[in-house]
Amino acid sequence: MKAFNIDHQRRDRLGFPEVVFGEPKSTEVLVAILEDYQAKQGNALVTRVSAAKAAELESFFPKAFYDKGSGIFMLQPIPEAAPEAQADIGLVAAGTSDAFVVNEAYYTLQFFGTPARRIVDVGVSGIHRLLNRQEELRRFQVLVVFAGFEGALPSVVGGLFSQPIIAVPTSVGYGVSEKGGAALNAMLASCANGITVVNINNGYGAAVAAYRILQQIQQQQQQAQ
Amino acid sequence: MKAFNIDHQRRDRLGFPEVVFGEPKSTEVLVAILEDYQAKQGNALVTRVSAAKAAELESFFPKAFYDKGSGIFMLQPIPEAAPEAQADIGLVAAGTSDAFVVNEAYYTLQFFGTPARRIVDVGVSGIHRLLNRQEELRRFQVLVVFAGFEGALPSVVGGLFSQPIIAVPTSVGYGVSEKGGAALNAMLASCANGITVVNINNGYGAAVAAYRILQQIQQQQQQAQ
Amino acid sequence: MKAFNIDHQRRDRLGFPEVVFGEPKSTEVLVAILEDYQAKQGNALVTRVSAAKAAELESFFPKAFYDKGSGIFMLQPIPEAAPEAQADIGLVAAGTSDAFVVNEAYYTLQFFGTPARRIVDVGVSGIHRLLNRQEELRRFQVLVVFAGFEGALPSVVGGLFSQPIIAVPTSVGYGVSEKGGAALNAMLASCANGITVVNINNGYGAAVAAYRILQQIQQQQQQAQ
Amino acid sequence: MKAFNIDHQRRDRLGFPEVVFGEPKSTEVLVAILEDYQAKQGNALVTRVSAAKAAELESFFPKAFYDKGSGIFMLQPIPEAAPEAQADIGLVAAGTSDAFVVNEAYYTLQFFGTPARRIVDVGVSGIHRLLNRQEELRRFQVLVVFAGFEGALPSVVGGLFSQPIIAVPTSVGYGVSEKGGAALNAMLASCANGITVVNINNGYGAAVAAYRILQQIQQQQQQAQ
Amino acid sequence: MKAFNIDHQRRDRLGFPEVVFGEPKSTEVLVAILEDYQAKQGNALVTRVSAAKAAELESFFPKAFYDKGSGIFMLQPIPEAAPEAQADIGLVAAGTSDAFVVNEAYYTLQFFGTPARRIVDVGVSGIHRLLNRQEELRRFQVLVVFAGFEGALPSVVGGLFSQPIIAVPTSVGYGVSEKGGAALNAMLASCANGITVVNINNGYGAAVAAYRILQQIQQQQQQAQ
Amino acid sequence: MKAFNIDHQRRDRLGFPEVVFGEPKSTEVLVAILEDYQAKQGNALVTRVSAAKAAELESFFPKAFYDKGSGIFMLQPIPEAAPEAQADIGLVAAGTSDAFVVNEAYYTLQFFGTPARRIVDVGVSGIHRLLNRQEELRRFQVLVVFAGFEGALPSVVGGLFSQPIIAVPTSVGYGVSEKGGAALNAMLASCANGITVVNINNGYGAAVAAYRILQQIQQQQQQAQ
Amino acid sequence: MKAFNIDHQRRDRLGFPEVVFGEPKSTEVLVAILEDYQAKQGNALVTRVSAAKAAELESFFPKAFYDKGSGIFMLQPIPEAAPEAQADIGLVAAGTSDAFVVNEAYYTLQFFGTPARRIVDVGVSGIHRLLNRQEELRRFQVLVVFAGFEGALPSVVGGLFSQPIIAVPTSVGYGVSEKGGAALNAMLASCANGITVVNINNGYGAAVAAYRILQQIQQQQQQAQ
Amino acid sequence: MKAFNIDHQRRDRLGFPEVVFGEPKSTEVLVAILEDYQAKQGNALVTRVSAAKAAELESFFPKAFYDKGSGIFMLQPIPEAAPEAQADIGLVAAGTSDAFVVNEAYYTLQFFGTPARRIVDVGVSGIHRLLNRQEELRRFQVLVVFAGFEGALPSVVGGLFSQPIIAVPTSVGYGVSEKGGAALNAMLASCANGITVVNINNGYGAAVAAYRILQQIQQQQQQAQ
Repeated sequence: MKAFNIDHQRRDRLGFPEVVFGEPKSTEVLVAILEDYQAKQGNALVTRVSAAKAAELESFFPKAFYDKGSGIFMLQPIPEAAPEAQADIGLVAAGTSDAFVVNEAYYTLQFFGTPARRIVDVGVSGIHRLLNRQEELRRFQVLVVFAGFEGALPSVVGGLFSQPIIAVPTSVGYGVSEKGGAALNAMLASCANGITVVNINNGYGAAVAAYRILQQIQQQQQQAQ
Repeated sequence: MKAFNIDHQRRDRLGFPEVVFGEPKSTEVLVAILEDYQAKQGNALVTRVSAAKAAELESFFPKAFYDKGSGIFMLQPIPEAAPEAQADIGLVAAGTSDAFVVNEAYYTLQFFGTPARRIVDVGVSGIHRLLNRQEELRRFQVLVVFAGFEGALPSVVGGLFSQPIIAVPTSVGYGVSEKGGAALNAMLASCANGITVVNINNGYGAAVAAYRILQQIQQQQQQAQ
Repeated sequence: MKAFNIDHQRRDRLGFPEVVFGEPKSTEVLVAILEDYQAKQGNALVTRVSAAKAAELESFFPKAFYDKGSGIFMLQPIPEAAPEAQADIGLVAAGTSDAFVVNEAYYTLQFFGTPARRIVDVGVSGIHRLLNRQEELRRFQVLVVFAGFEGALPSVVGGLFSQPIIAVPTSVGYGVSEKGGAALNAMLASCANGITVVNINNGYGAAVAAYRILQQIQQQQQQAQ
Repeated sequence: MKAFNIDHQRRDRLGFPEVVFGEPKSTEVLVAILEDYQAKQGNALVTRVSAAKAAELESFFPKAFYDKGSGIFMLQPIPEAAPEAQADIGLVAAGTSDAFVVNEAYYTLQFFGTPARRIVDVGVSGIHRLLNRQEELRRFQVLVVFAGFEGALPSVVGGLFSQPIIAVPTSVGYGVSEKGGAALNAMLASCANGITVVNINNGYGAAVAAYRILQQIQQQQQQAQ
Repeated sequence: MKAFNIDHQRRDRLGFPEVVFGEPKSTEVLVAILEDYQAKQGNALVTRVSAAKAAELESFFPKAFYDKGSGIFMLQPIPEAAPEAQADIGLVAAGTSDAFVVNEAYYTLQFFGTPARRIVDVGVSGIHRLLNRQEELRRFQVLVVFAGFEGALPSVVGGLFSQPIIAVPTSVGYGVSEKGGAALNAMLASCANGITVVNINNGYGAAVAAYRILQQIQQQQQQAQ
Repeated sequence: MKAFNIDHQRRDRLGFPEVVFGEPKSTEVLVAILEDYQAKQGNALVTRVSAAKAAELESFFPKAFYDKGSGIFMLQPIPEAAPEAQADIGLVAAGTSDAFVVNEAYYTLQFFGTPARRIVDVGVSGIHRLLNRQEELRRFQVLVVFAGFEGALPSVVGGLFSQPIIAVPTSVGYGVSEKGGAALNAMLASCANGITVVNINNGYGAAVAAYRILQQIQQQQQQAQ
Repeated sequence: MKAFNIDHQRRDRLGFPEVVFGEPKSTEVLVAILEDYQAKQGNALVTRVSAAKAAELESFFPKAFYDKGSGIFMLQPIPEAAPEAQADIGLVAAGTSDAFVVNEAYYTLQFFGTPARRIVDVGVSGIHRLLNRQEELRRFQVLVVFAGFEGALPSVVGGLFSQPIIAVPTSVGYGVSEKGGAALNAMLASCANGITVVNINNGYGAAVAAYRILQQIQQQQQQAQ
Repeated sequence: MKAFNIDHQRRDRLGFPEVVFGEPKSTEVLVAILEDYQAKQGNALVTRVSAAKAAELESFFPKAFYDKGSGIFMLQPIPEAAPEAQADIGLVAAGTSDAFVVNEAYYTLQFFGTPARRIVDVGVSGIHRLLNRQEELRRFQVLVVFAGFEGALPSVVGGLFSQPIIAVPTSVGYGVSEKGGAALNAMLASCANGITVVNINNGYGAAVAAYRILQQIQQQQQQAQ
């Protein structure tokens, strides 16, 4: 039995490479997969790598990049292509505690070659923090909005801004919001129109969704020119 | 077997009378209960009375008051004690569709002798509607906030106003918010501090909770004078 | 109490008008709201209108358009702006039974002035039906994918196409998929990357989300020219 | 990216300061936030701090107060303003095991400058314990009632006392009550009228809700004088 | 295919006869089953028979007994064996609205030849109603306690009385208690010791459980004599 | 938009034809689909057809077969190929009330040309009914076992018989088993080994699963000869 | 604040003493409570004590009894009053893995002075193991039946034996039965009549329920003599 | 109390031996059970054995086989009877991460004496990986299909292949698919016909189900010869 079967054609088919879901895989399996990526694609990104597993991987891949908060592991760090201030994608989070998901999206977009800008702690319990930054938020092509607890931020953002909005529920909270279910349902049920949602804590998926939109915009821009 | 056992001392004990939960009771049982109330307390309030049952009850109690939207039935209508504009309790609703719950609270407070003011359709998807009325909302002693769908309104209200806030989830919505569960959980998980919550569609309970607070304020005011 | 409070500025703010959620509103309330729209915006769209309510509304608004399957009601029918074949948005459904949600999206986009193309009955249990139409699907700017039961179609579509993909779970099914929950969770958990999801049966919301993307593409195209 | 964005105006807006949700934040982030609070507000309160994290924080803030049971951490201890016996707020708990939530409320109120009185182990399985203390309980302005397992205590309290009552479900229990859900639902569904509820284990939120009521009472008392 | 297969030996094996679950069966099937019972056992009891179905059955079995509230149908009415006041089993209900379940138990016990006594509307929101009747309740061999909403009554009863206690959750309520789930979980999680529980609205099952206990007591009494 | 897209090659691919899920489809759509089947395949089977819809369809297809209990509709009745007693597939049901699901399986297998034998009312509360028929049950190639309520029958069958066993939960029951969820989970969690499960009330799916096994057995028998 | 408030009158009121729920209590609190019991009642029983906590307690109470499997801790071991073979209560378990709950019941009954007999590994997947011991099981006054996974054993027992039957779901299992929910629902929904149920893993509660029945039988026996 | 009661006759009754569920059992209990098996049957298989417990068991049974990934423990390793390429049963998995469940099935079948072939990482997000291996998959007698996340693979397999198909949901995923529930429901609700399902992560049960089918095929083949 061969333990894995990488979809190396994905970049050709979809415009972005396959990444590796690290959580359930043993270090042995990850090393084998990463060696295959290293040989064929140069770099690779793994999500949800624990600190202990990252330490083991770093002994095999000493040049690797690892962000402990988000659990993102890359075979090689990505040089900053452009200043964050010129980013097309805005990553807007209700609280400081959501940063672990925001950064999963941030590094995924970095890996895809697209800078994003992080704007955190603008939650609805002190709504002036959001209202004061409307000008800035209006400049992004896509808004990705992160919130835990009751997940109300995307509804307010959706009523204020006309861009595509991707909502990301996070597992920040306790009691009825312990694993992010309250935020997920709130975002799906949002009275603000045209918000779309990804799975709980799925910063990676939100990044890909934003990238699909950006890719489509850029293709059409090129055809229009 | 005697079919019922009314708690006629409740007003002495708690400051407000028992009311009747009408939904599961047959017309025969309701008539018997209401005759007991009529004899001992003069008036009575029944919640969740269907239009068909109300029509049957009206043949027994021709002076009764019935509001179809909320299902509130009273043996006698209550004369307006004071203009709604001077109300101590604000009933603030996200949407027009929440009116059936708002009115359950409104008539319960009327039955208790306390006017309330209804402010509807100020939901977060067009947040200017709420921000424009802050002055007005600041004047109430207690705010009762109603919302269906994702139930985000109480979180925004909680961040703007210092009064006691009672959140009422409504069953307005579909899919994950079909029976009000998404709004309920959002209100319980609210990142805005010190919001309390009642059961889904429980306009009656929210009215009693607001009345308990108002009663306590008024007692203390009298002792202070 | 004024029963409603229309957000007439929404088109200026977001690029598309407010629409009316018809399900919980009485005919009386709907007539009042629609008269306000008629006076200020000319046309209006109501979602989830039952056949009985539509018949009542048509006596007030005899020129109105009503689609029984989807429950869409518009004050005035929309003339076909362009043939469906040139549509920028593809509405792709797993089964014939999903049509009631597909059409909610279709008429919403028509109301916004954007044609969409409907492609139904290409579900995964006979996957050749999808594989045979890849060329055609690759031409759309945005794909909206509808499925009930186990909701597997978006995962397959997400692995084949590079565009933005919005998945819409429908309530078609029974047992564990009775109200669409199985399809919803499958779409949120999809192993295919960058798929976003809306609430169960929310054809309207998916249409707005697709419109937000298209609007952003068109703005950038214009700026690029 | 600045990692946090404190709402320092909250006390002016709402009458009480922002507090910090400690659970998901790393020690590094907490230290940075607490230094900001120390500089601008003098004191700060953090909820849900584990013993290990508290030990790390104490090396940065050696004068801090920490209560292991409730996880409450304050930059500075609060001197007892008044004897607990004169408290306006009664914290009434069904069992000894609920103390961790009771104390979260107790220290939050202490931090806000309001003494509260704790009355524990008066649950309904030995109801004489509650019935014997009615006189004492009648003296509080607000009752906060804590219970795990089946959460029946607030229903009995609600039928005996006229004050505002805030019910706090706790996660004490196992099987169907393992995470507090049975107690939460029981409190929301209480047949006793006018009880309001906060999230599971949310002693902090219940304290803020009680404080909002007390603040409103005191403002009205002052205006009455 | 023979459509049914009655367990006519059950009375010999267990001490009580099989009864028929009427809800999902068509009138045709019920008639066939009842004719078999009539021939072999004389009488039969059917639970959950709708009024419409009962009317059809009565045309086949004109001497039958039917109680509309509980849906109990018997081929022959049971003469009162003894006054209700001498009953060994107490059926204690929180509210008037629980009567439909109480009566399912009452008539089942009547069918088994054992009188029961019904005591309704002694719920915890006015606990004096229960406390005033302790003497009377102490006389029963078994207590069956019915409650909807938050289901708190069995917990209080369990702390006051030493007998076997069977708790029956009812579907009386709305929101989180809509189908009886809140009451069920509260009864299972009761802090009062040694309470056992049956399915929601299962008055029939509670009656059988009480009968099993009574049967065991009576056998042992006879052996002791 | 063409409303449907029949998979007419399914019989070639899988050995059995596509059938139509009737529940969500309008009569108009069903007529169009059935005419297509009539033209290309002669016969067709529709599941979950209500009595009202069947009456409408019969006006279009006067030779059709309809079984009200199961909701099965076929363009043409199937002549009995062989006596039920020689059937390879045993359909074993706990109760009389499960017959509506048993018959969905029975007629599906009839449509596929394979007789099945129905054995009902052998549930575990009178286990002698099952133990007495072991000889008979041992003769089938495949056992399909139906149960509602607690769904215990497949566990007992699984411990007694060596054949492939397919368990079908039914929605017969109330309270915690109201929609078949208790039976479904019990069957999935069965301590008896090697039982497989289909969706609630999915008699059709169980029939296809049994047919897949029988088809494989028959192919291998033919190759062995 | 006094941390606890023991119900020392419970034995007088109910016939059995209060026991201590050990899981959420710290060692300090347990020591204080146990010293109070030691002074006033001599012995005490604590449930759900971890091995680590037990070791700490044993340094305070060196004569204590501790059973690691069930987590039962008693201040003093109970001498065997009578051989297990003469027990009035039968503890019947489906599997070896259920022993941790069986023993919680066993030691609770021992603490109450009533021997019980344990019969394990007689689950329905090899039903001969139960059928072979019918004679023995018929001798008990009360049967307590334990099962995890699908919880089918009480249904079979309920159809074979006439005594009072208390079903105890255990958390043995995984997937849909991971925390005992599948077994709980199966027992509540049992088609066998008159089975009552306690919370998941609640061996203690089942023991008290059995003791209540036994106590009632013995009182009546004494009166009969 | 004898702690266990092995069903040594199972192989005679069902054609395959009992295996031991290792997770909840202590090492002491497992050693006693395994000694019994060793004496009477020679070999034995235990599922869900942790690495720590396996190390303890190996000190008692030094010739034992243990596979860490799946937690399978056997008293003696099984020699490869036949090359994997000639296997009758195909184990087809969506991802590398599902291997822990695949191997539970693989070793169970090895223990039963039947080789199986493992084909992993052919999930629907890169569907060419499955389409390219159709020839190979068509050769198996039974297909067992494993998937986590949204569990879509069995639906696609079910539409392409005519054999019996057993779907196994795995707990690979997070958010709504965290414990395998999304995959389970998707497989139960599959629009592909005749797929049957086992409990989450139940590789063992799927193996037994496949073995039941294979056993039936082989018996019929022998009779046909």
